Amino acid sequence: MKLLRYGEVGSERPGLLDADGTIRDLSAHVADIAGTVLHPASLEMLGKLDPKSLPAVSGKPRLGACVAGTGKFICIGLNYSDHAAETGATVPPEPIIFMKASSAIVGPDDDVLIPRGSVKTDWEVELAVVIGKTAKYVSEADALDYVAGYCVAHDVSERAFQAERQGQWTKGKSCDTFGPTGPWLVTKDEVADPQNLKMWLTVNGKTMQNGSTKTMVYGVKYLVSYLSQFMSLHPGDIISTGTPPGVGLGMKPPVFLKAGDVVELGIEGLGQQKQTFKADV
Amino acid sequence: MKLLRYGEVGSERPGLLDADGTIRDLSAHVADIAGTVLHPASLEMLGKLDPKSLPAVSGKPRLGACVAGTGKFICIGLNYSDHAAETGATVPPEPIIFMKASSAIVGPDDDVLIPRGSVKTDWEVELAVVIGKTAKYVSEADALDYVAGYCVAHDVSERAFQAERQGQWTKGKSCDTFGPTGPWLVTKDEVADPQNLKMWLTVNGKTMQNGSTKTMVYGVKYLVSYLSQFMSLHPGDIISTGTPPGVGLGMKPPVFLKAGDVVELGIEGLGQQKQTFKADV
Repeated sequence: MKLLRYGEVGSERPGLLDADGTIRDLSAHVADIAGTVLHPASLEMLGKLDPKSLPAVSGKPRLGACVAGTGKFICIGLNYSDHAAETGATVPPEPIIFMKASSAIVGPDDDVLIPRGSVKTDWEVELAVVIGKTAKYVSEADALDYVAGYCVAHDVSERAFQAERQGQWTKGKSCDTFGPTGPWLVTKDEVADPQNLKMWLTVNGKTMQNGSTKTMVYGVKYLVSYLSQFMSLHPGDIISTGTPPGVGLGMKPPVFLKAGDVVELGIEGLGQQKQTFKADV
Repeated sequence: MKLLRYGEVGSERPGLLDADGTIRDLSAHVADIAGTVLHPASLEMLGKLDPKSLPAVSGKPRLGACVAGTGKFICIGLNYSDHAAETGATVPPEPIIFMKASSAIVGPDDDVLIPRGSVKTDWEVELAVVIGKTAKYVSEADALDYVAGYCVAHDVSERAFQAERQGQWTKGKSCDTFGPTGPWLVTKDEVADPQNLKMWLTVNGKTMQNGSTKTMVYGVKYLVSYLSQFMSLHPGDIISTGTPPGVGLGMKPPVFLKAGDVVELGIEGLGQQKQTFKADV
């Protein structure tokens, strides 16, 4: 299933994308794509619905972030060996984790605002894992039992805020609109191998990132298990698993985003996003 | 006003503490101490209620965290000059910020769980600021307009997870139960000067921290303004402003918490907390 949220900001409705690419409304069955709706038993129930029995949504509504009620937006740093290399870092001996403010989450095609004072706004296409039920001290073998599915996440990053304004990356990761998520949550039954998905990102039509989750250092199962040793993961929590090579910071000389730039990104089987970058005035 | 939440975990009710120290139920007026209830206009309305007209709550109910619906739990690192010194660091030229998972929040007297594998669980009494209305790019002069009030926060920290398990402090700050908050949210009209509050912490009755917000490097107004340049602050967001000297890591040799230890902490005018530390089995 491809679950999504459509409608204006703050009044999104739950839906799913049927096999023909039509949005079908799920409001009669669930209040939102959030919380207990993400539990495996709930997803199984939704999977039994005949999409054609659900109201078709006409037109091309805005899409919201594909999951609501995200308590934690946890990101993994330097989790692709060649991305680590391009930023001058080495692969860490265990995952680097940091938080992105959940208030940064927006829809997949919403405008992204370049914060006041920013000079180094950068892009990062990432595979995001959405938690479906509470995970605490889970083993790697059981980890996928706690996963609802996957989506595309854009881990927009301000490199000066991140690295030149006193440690702790949160500052450069949490700006409003820095977390486009979606277009849809693809339930895990539709993703045969999360460690073998092509991923790409273009800026103004030019390919910047062209990688695969194959080169991820710490994979999805490992990360869910690892994180659950430090804190409980709850339904709707998002783990963004790091980015492959090709970010602006890694270019020689570095290249950063400016108002008017258009970024498109996608992951095999998970859909794509398109954002226009604008100055936050 | 001293606003609080009382009752069992997950079913707390809103209340206030009257001048006699009796809890009065606020359920007839607000659904919870959260979101728009924290707006200055809403707090003004609540302030006009006669506490004696509200139902008195009998007995000694458990207290929950004093604020619900916290989207961001933002912490400031090394924000007391002498605490920086005791940990071998220097005062940073601008605030260090990091996130504590909001899933770490518990009531002020709830048990704190020492995570599996922890050997360096430490204490930190902190003044927390609770946001009352959305703040973005606000000036230092206007900053307090966006503050609902203050409370005690215990920024429980696992030093090995924080500093020896790959950068980014989040890992040692976000464990379940590592964020006792309360006992009550004291509205800002009752706090004449947030930069002149005595604060203290004891472990098994022995004083470990005995400081004052006077020695805070970056004060409340500055922090609210500063953070709002990087991200919007929303009602219910908490800013924990750092800890004075006396943490376990700073002792020679360092001292850390073990199962059975009892920590008490408080801030002048904001009440106190008491936690028993237990192994997370």
